[in-house]
Amino acid sequence: MTLAVRYTAARTLDTAPAETSAPGPGEVELAPAYVGICGTDLHIFHGDMDARVSAPAVLGHEMSGRVVRVGPGVEGWRPGDAVTVMPLRWDDTCPACRAGHQHICQHLDFIGIDSPGAMQQRWVVPASTLIRLPGSLPLDRAALVEPTAVAVHDVGRAGLRDGEKVVVVGGGPVGILIALVARAAGAEVRVVELSAHRRLLAEELGLTAWNPVDDDVPELVRQWTGDAGADVAFEVSGAAGGVDTAVDVLGVRGRLCLVAIHPRPREVNLHRFFWRELTLVGARLYDRSDFEKAVTLVADGTIPAERLISKVVPLTQAPAAFEALEGGGDVMKILVECTDDAQGAAV
Amino acid sequence: MTLAVRYTAARTLDTAPAETSAPGPGEVELAPAYVGICGTDLHIFHGDMDARVSAPAVLGHEMSGRVVRVGPGVEGWRPGDAVTVMPLRWDDTCPACRAGHQHICQHLDFIGIDSPGAMQQRWVVPASTLIRLPGSLPLDRAALVEPTAVAVHDVGRAGLRDGEKVVVVGGGPVGILIALVARAAGAEVRVVELSAHRRLLAEELGLTAWNPVDDDVPELVRQWTGDAGADVAFEVSGAAGGVDTAVDVLGVRGRLCLVAIHPRPREVNLHRFFWRELTLVGARLYDRSDFEKAVTLVADGTIPAERLISKVVPLTQAPAAFEALEGGGDVMKILVECTDDAQGAAV
Ligand SMILES: NC(=O)c1ccc[n+]([C@@H]2O[C@H](COP(=O)([O-])OP(=O)(O)OC[C@H]3O[C@@H](n4cnc5c(N)ncnc54)[C@H](O)[C@@H]3O)[C@@H](O)[C@H]2O)c1
Ligand SMILES: NC(=O)c1ccc[n+]([C@@H]2O[C@H](COP(=O)([O-])OP(=O)(O)OC[C@H]3O[C@@H](n4cnc5c(N)ncnc54)[C@H](O)[C@@H]3O)[C@@H](O)[C@H]2O)c1
Ligand SMILES: [Zn+2]
Ligand SMILES: [Zn+2]
Repeated sequence: MTLAVRYTAARTLDTAPAETSAPGPGEVELAPAYVGICGTDLHIFHGDMDARVSAPAVLGHEMSGRVVRVGPGVEGWRPGDAVTVMPLRWDDTCPACRAGHQHICQHLDFIGIDSPGAMQQRWVVPASTLIRLPGSLPLDRAALVEPTAVAVHDVGRAGLRDGEKVVVVGGGPVGILIALVARAAGAEVRVVELSAHRRLLAEELGLTAWNPVDDDVPELVRQWTGDAGADVAFEVSGAAGGVDTAVDVLGVRGRLCLVAIHPRPREVNLHRFFWRELTLVGARLYDRSDFEKAVTLVADGTIPAERLISKVVPLTQAPAAFEALEGGGDVMKILVECTDDAQGAAV
Repeated sequence: MTLAVRYTAARTLDTAPAETSAPGPGEVELAPAYVGICGTDLHIFHGDMDARVSAPAVLGHEMSGRVVRVGPGVEGWRPGDAVTVMPLRWDDTCPACRAGHQHICQHLDFIGIDSPGAMQQRWVVPASTLIRLPGSLPLDRAALVEPTAVAVHDVGRAGLRDGEKVVVVGGGPVGILIALVARAAGAEVRVVELSAHRRLLAEELGLTAWNPVDDDVPELVRQWTGDAGADVAFEVSGAAGGVDTAVDVLGVRGRLCLVAIHPRPREVNLHRFFWRELTLVGARLYDRSDFEKAVTLVADGTIPAERLISKVVPLTQAPAAFEALEGGGDVMKILVECTDDAQGAAV
């Protein structure tokens, strides 16, 4: 018998036995090792995504694990291989796919939202979603590959160049990863973040972090850039105030990369977009090359993944971890450990 | 004695005798022939730009005319030469200029707003602002070169490619010019415009025009593009509803070129920017290459300038023309004629 964490109704998760099924043609059965809890999982937990998620639903899309069985016709993978999953399935026929943008397919299946996710002991996925992990990479760190792929994609969408000055608004897991990827690409980076705990972590990683409440961020940017303004801003806070900050810090022809999800329309200072010829670029998810780059960055230590992992809990304690994360609290990334060993006495 | 149209206070223009002064070193004295009235001139007339415009102020920046005298050290220009003016002076030292974006200099002098404009019988400008006109181009049509340069710049900022599908939101003078320049660049174009008179003019120019009130514009775009959405939208209405239309019609990776001036922040559907990886690009003014391209397009008839000129009035009737334009009315572009002959009995 294997276990799964299931979303059953708004604000309700349980841990329940799950049916396992043999992998079909082109599919692979995995044993998830670690699964990160991300903001989207929290949105689902709140009940905000009930239109898209059909309960009971197994959550989780930031994962690492090993191949258990391969289905008919699957080549190149063997039991025991360490992998992560790029959790996207597209239709290959819509206008987005035909234009080569499969990751924003107009009928995208995001595995872990639109179909069952990784927070369980066995998980069947298409072999085409697998990304190989180097044997030397500990699996807990590898669970950070997916959000790192988001960051790689965002830095690419911003067209970041060596030596540019970058402001990252929002120093949650995604913002910090963007800051680290941007720094590795040669940028000078400042992080703007409300939480003192998260600012401290950013500083410990060698990033300068500002407080949008106490610091005059636009003025600090003017001083830092000799009145030019920043070349690039990333909006990763999801807050209305974060949008304003990101627009206000940019210099002429500056680029604002919009990463955060804003469920409601936001007031935007369009006059400044005209006046300074700014650009706003939306960024969503990643493609395979972003994922492969992310594996390299996590494996070679450019992303100090272990520093971003605040806590590891067994499957059975995932419901409590969601409640803790919801309260804000002094955490960055929480991982759910799925192996039998991890469940220990709790099962 | 020469005449000038002067803005003296909110909603007040007069026609008054003006001092003439000899052109200084590097300057040229022009005799303006035709000067277009544009939306910015109307904003000044309303008193909305009193913080920037010091009354009494001579308006006008869309012009054609002839060289009368050249100042010391000016080479390459002779009395009688037909010219238009790129009405920009920059400081060459600010971060924008140093980055090569002189047209959005952080201390830009826009001639006709920040310093005296062309609505007068003699006008002294730096020789560096002159753009040569072909002798064959009638001077009334040449007054459309400046707004055409805006359109050329905007189409360039949108990165428009041959065969792309384009929606222009707002079919005023600037919107229609963008539509014509985009069509000449190989795009398929639709115009969305509130005014029946302006839609009719667009149709007469061979453009398809939709009504945002009676037509379901996003649905028409879906049908037109096989559910893909438009490649490019231009927001040239300045209205909140125009922003929504421009965002709603775009397909994945679509680009929204923001041309209109929005004095207030607007609510923007940022979720769609994320979801479809849209891009918003601000566009302001033009550079010399845009102006030279505009001269070619007006001179070779790609821009049927004569069709966009609704009316020509003498200097002395400019104040009345501003009031007529303000009321909306069935007009596109009104030109003010500055020559002595045009003043005729009115003086
Ligand atoms: N584009 C994508 O594909 C993609 C992928 C993953 C996540 N996301 C989105 O990215 C955003 C960030 O994700 P996360 O997991 O890091 O979320 P998070 O909520 O943990 O982080 C957001 C951070 O922003 C800070 N913040 C809030 N208001 C602020 C303000 N005004 N100024 C500065 N900081 C402010 C918060 O304190 C918090 O630390 C979310 O909106 C998430 O949905 C997008
Ligand atoms: N970027 C630049 O450098 C630059 C240069 C010149 C003008 N502009 C700006 O461009 C805009 C257009 O200039 P113009 O001279 O053509 O102005 P205009 O006011 O004559 O034209 C705007 C048109 O938009 C239409 N409209 C209003 N609401 C609409 C809606 N919801 N949907 C569709 N159409 C709508 C109006 O009926 C009008 O015909 C103005 O905001 C102007 O300030 C910008
Ligand atoms: Zn598709
Ligand atoms: Zn400058």
